[in-house]
Amino acid sequence: MITSSQNPRIQQMRALLAQHKARQSSRQFIVEGVRLMEEAWLSSQRPAALYFSAALSERGLKIVDSYRELQVEVEELTPSLMESLSQTEASQGILGVFPLRPLPLPEKPDFLLVIDNLRDPGNLGTMLRCAAAAGVQGVLLTPGTTEAFAPKVLRAGMGAHFRLPIHNHTWPEIQTLARRSSPPLRLLLSEVNDGESCWKLDLTRPLILVIGSEAEGATAEARAAADSLIHIPMPGQSESLNAAVAAGVLLFEVVRQRQQ
Amino acid sequence: MITSSQNPRIQQMRALLAQHKARQSSRQFIVEGVRLMEEAWLSSQRPAALYFSAALSERGLKIVDSYRELQVEVEELTPSLMESLSQTEASQGILGVFPLRPLPLPEKPDFLLVIDNLRDPGNLGTMLRCAAAAGVQGVLLTPGTTEAFAPKVLRAGMGAHFRLPIHNHTWPEIQTLARRSSPPLRLLLSEVNDGESCWKLDLTRPLILVIGSEAEGATAEARAAADSLIHIPMPGQSESLNAAVAAGVLLFEVVRQRQQ
Repeated sequence: MITSSQNPRIQQMRALLAQHKARQSSRQFIVEGVRLMEEAWLSSQRPAALYFSAALSERGLKIVDSYRELQVEVEELTPSLMESLSQTEASQGILGVFPLRPLPLPEKPDFLLVIDNLRDPGNLGTMLRCAAAAGVQGVLLTPGTTEAFAPKVLRAGMGAHFRLPIHNHTWPEIQTLARRSSPPLRLLLSEVNDGESCWKLDLTRPLILVIGSEAEGATAEARAAADSLIHIPMPGQSESLNAAVAAGVLLFEVVRQRQQ
Repeated sequence: MITSSQNPRIQQMRALLAQHKARQSSRQFIVEGVRLMEEAWLSSQRPAALYFSAALSERGLKIVDSYRELQVEVEELTPSLMESLSQTEASQGILGVFPLRPLPLPEKPDFLLVIDNLRDPGNLGTMLRCAAAAGVQGVLLTPGTTEAFAPKVLRAGMGAHFRLPIHNHTWPEIQTLARRSSPPLRLLLSEVNDGESCWKLDLTRPLILVIGSEAEGATAEARAAADSLIHIPMPGQSESLNAAVAAGVLLFEVVRQRQQ
């Protein structure tokens, strides 16, 4: 049992939880809580190490046992040490350290999502969850977007991180990807009141949907790269939607048109 | 200028910000920040009183001046007193006390939303914002739903509170409303994998959409009251959407069908 907060593994976990840089340099991230660990298990994700405390429920202990059978290294922490690491109000007593190794994009994608310049971690996680539900084949994050493997994003993502290819791409890379794909992908930028109605545009053809930051709107680079602008017609007086809600409406409109 | 935290008005504001009971008994709520105050102004909402501090921007001072011209009572607070009231990290230096007086429902509604048993204030606010954008004519909150006029809900609502009739209703009241309307309103309950596809159901007829808590699903009362179940078909493996995103997809599907 690990009991000291000075233990180098504990210090490494603290860094992985708090620092983008630590996640990037060690190519690892941390998953917390029973539900997210279950999602990781169901998606055949193998942690580098697994930590639990006496606070863990029966349901959580099953995950520990399952991973132990796969020879995953499991260590117990004291409840207070686990609590000190936890990013939630009350720790459920389970943390896993996972390799940060994005799933590959499909060779001939026809449904990708670019998230441009989005700063809010909760909104990013909600969008990833929605993208996974809509069957998006990959998500590309531009340099201005908050990092996807921070604890808050993982919590809101509800397991989407384990099923969805999530890549960091610059705008030139995204344009090259769109043009060189066969067939090429149209870049459709979501705007509040500009461009074509999402209900009139043909979304059955291969496309990349681009969602921007809700506070600042699309970046100049996104506007320059876009083939078309697309909007959700709004009968009400409220002039905009939360970015994750707008992404949901547009992604499921793609799904609807393709199911007809 | 008010300088003391013991001032009875300051104590009343503190209670209005923190306590559901205080808002209910005095039938008042508090709006904080420049953007929300602008929304209140644009929606012709008149505060009972308005407070500002030296931290307020030029843009915010315009609102103060506009309300002063309407003979609204305006008081200055010391910056530290304003900061102590603020629910955000850095106060923008403006707070308004508004009467809690819901707008009336239309006489012959054909598009209402019930939010059943939703606990998360941010999700509730996002849903209200989305309902206002979709042109929903009124929102009914069941007794298990978190209160709509708490500061977090107002922030996420982005002004929807000023444009949308928001009422607290029990399930028997909702059923009576649905049956006695002319024409009657169908109660459609959103479920994850049950009922009919939202793309196949005719949503042009008068309806009340019911969205439940995402953690616990629909309540037994909601299920008993519903005329039909409705779901969003999901090609991806992620088994559910954030409740506000699901509401967005369904509300804008109603808008789409009615615009055809």
